[in-house]
Amino acid sequence: MNQSVPLDNPRAVRQAIREGRIAGPTNGLAPGFIQCNILILPHQYADDFARYCELNRRACPVLAQSQVGDPALPTLADDIDIRTDLSAYSVFEHGQLTQTKHDIKDLWDDDFVTFAFGCSFSFEELLVQEGVGQAYLERGDSAAIYYTNIDTEAVGPFAGKIVVSMRPLTPADAIKAIQLTTQYPDVHGAPIHIGHPHLIGIVDINSPVQSLTQTRVMKDELPVFWACGVTSQLAAEQARLPLCISHASAHMLVTDLNLEQVKKQA
Amino acid sequence: MNQSVPLDNPRAVRQAIREGRIAGPTNGLAPGFIQCNILILPHQYADDFARYCELNRRACPVLAQSQVGDPALPTLADDIDIRTDLSAYSVFEHGQLTQTKHDIKDLWDDDFVTFAFGCSFSFEELLVQEGVGQAYLERGDSAAIYYTNIDTEAVGPFAGKIVVSMRPLTPADAIKAIQLTTQYPDVHGAPIHIGHPHLIGIVDINSPVQSLTQTRVMKDELPVFWACGVTSQLAAEQARLPLCISHASAHMLVTDLNLEQVKKQA
Repeated sequence: MNQSVPLDNPRAVRQAIREGRIAGPTNGLAPGFIQCNILILPHQYADDFARYCELNRRACPVLAQSQVGDPALPTLADDIDIRTDLSAYSVFEHGQLTQTKHDIKDLWDDDFVTFAFGCSFSFEELLVQEGVGQAYLERGDSAAIYYTNIDTEAVGPFAGKIVVSMRPLTPADAIKAIQLTTQYPDVHGAPIHIGHPHLIGIVDINSPVQSLTQTRVMKDELPVFWACGVTSQLAAEQARLPLCISHASAHMLVTDLNLEQVKKQA
Repeated sequence: MNQSVPLDNPRAVRQAIREGRIAGPTNGLAPGFIQCNILILPHQYADDFARYCELNRRACPVLAQSQVGDPALPTLADDIDIRTDLSAYSVFEHGQLTQTKHDIKDLWDDDFVTFAFGCSFSFEELLVQEGVGQAYLERGDSAAIYYTNIDTEAVGPFAGKIVVSMRPLTPADAIKAIQLTTQYPDVHGAPIHIGHPHLIGIVDINSPVQSLTQTRVMKDELPVFWACGVTSQLAAEQARLPLCISHASAHMLVTDLNLEQVKKQA
């Protein structure tokens, strides 16, 4: 990574990604600014997908939807070109991952619609600021991703289970995390479950489908589960659309929005 | 109980208590209106006690403090006479319960100061309205009281452990209960613990120090613990004051304040 990039400035980070100087995951970049999951699909599916997201907002909080064929997302930042501003893209054809790419200029179609979702990377920053989850971070654990047995509300071809992210928290931190994230419905809001993984279909808490490192729940902690943006990606995959494109895991769109701008009053 | 008392009207309830027509516990009376724990003590201890409550506000949220010798509490209702408006009083001498009385007109002293605390009876009404805790209520369980190993901040003669009330809730209800009660710091606010009773010194969850009925935590539930007004009473008892007077358990002061009036914005 080029050390001359001011990594706390979202515009500079996007510029560096656009120019290929940043090619890795975006966690930790531009702290305090909202990062987005991205899903791009052909126009004919956009209405159903928008409705699907609306009905499953905890998992799929849409922060912005583009005009048809327009690579801009002006409400997130005035310089975004979604064809170049992610450091890695996953391309799915008929539900199968067929390519991972650093830009999608050659694939772009005037028929495409982009959806941007608030991501829990954003509220993790907030939790860290408030000292929530120090224990698991200090022992080198990270949030982990699990499939659940909770059905989403289906719309057209879009359906599937809710995917969750889990953080192991002390009881006091769990309470604080619920209080804090409740104020940010645009980045998944409050947890959807706490304490009893088997009740949401998680048989083995030590076997997440995805985790940056390991994730252990200590005996004085509680597993706390938030709905996760992977839900929408899974629904799009399972719809087996001829073509859809998402951010590659952990390679998010860095926006100019900060947490304060999406905070909701109780 | 005289059936002609309009039990949803706080003023009528106080009047009936004052006249001896209601002599029992006040839970369920004047729903939606704040009920208060009461502690009355000699003026010389009032400053220390006020400071103690301030430092331990989760357990001891003072809603009103009287003028010295004045039996009125005008911010809670304009007709209150604290000498007659509780259905039962506990009288403590040097830390020992010596009498239970229906009024304290004969004990009243111009030296007395009254403290009124928001009580969790008030937020239970709110939880019921929002459908939180239906499961334990429907099986006939009730909130239970426990001592913890958490020290309060001591001031002068006032010290002791935090006392908690516990409600067994499903994970979804536990999250909702945290969100709701966070908005009401004047009636104990958010829980102080969830899920691991042994961490706060509760060895046997099936042995509360006090419960109206039984209280079981089912295997798909979590025990959720709120700081409890009994904390201040315990501190006053343990201070072994020559004289102090409290409401008798579950015989609270019914006020004209409603929950909406003590709601705080996040």
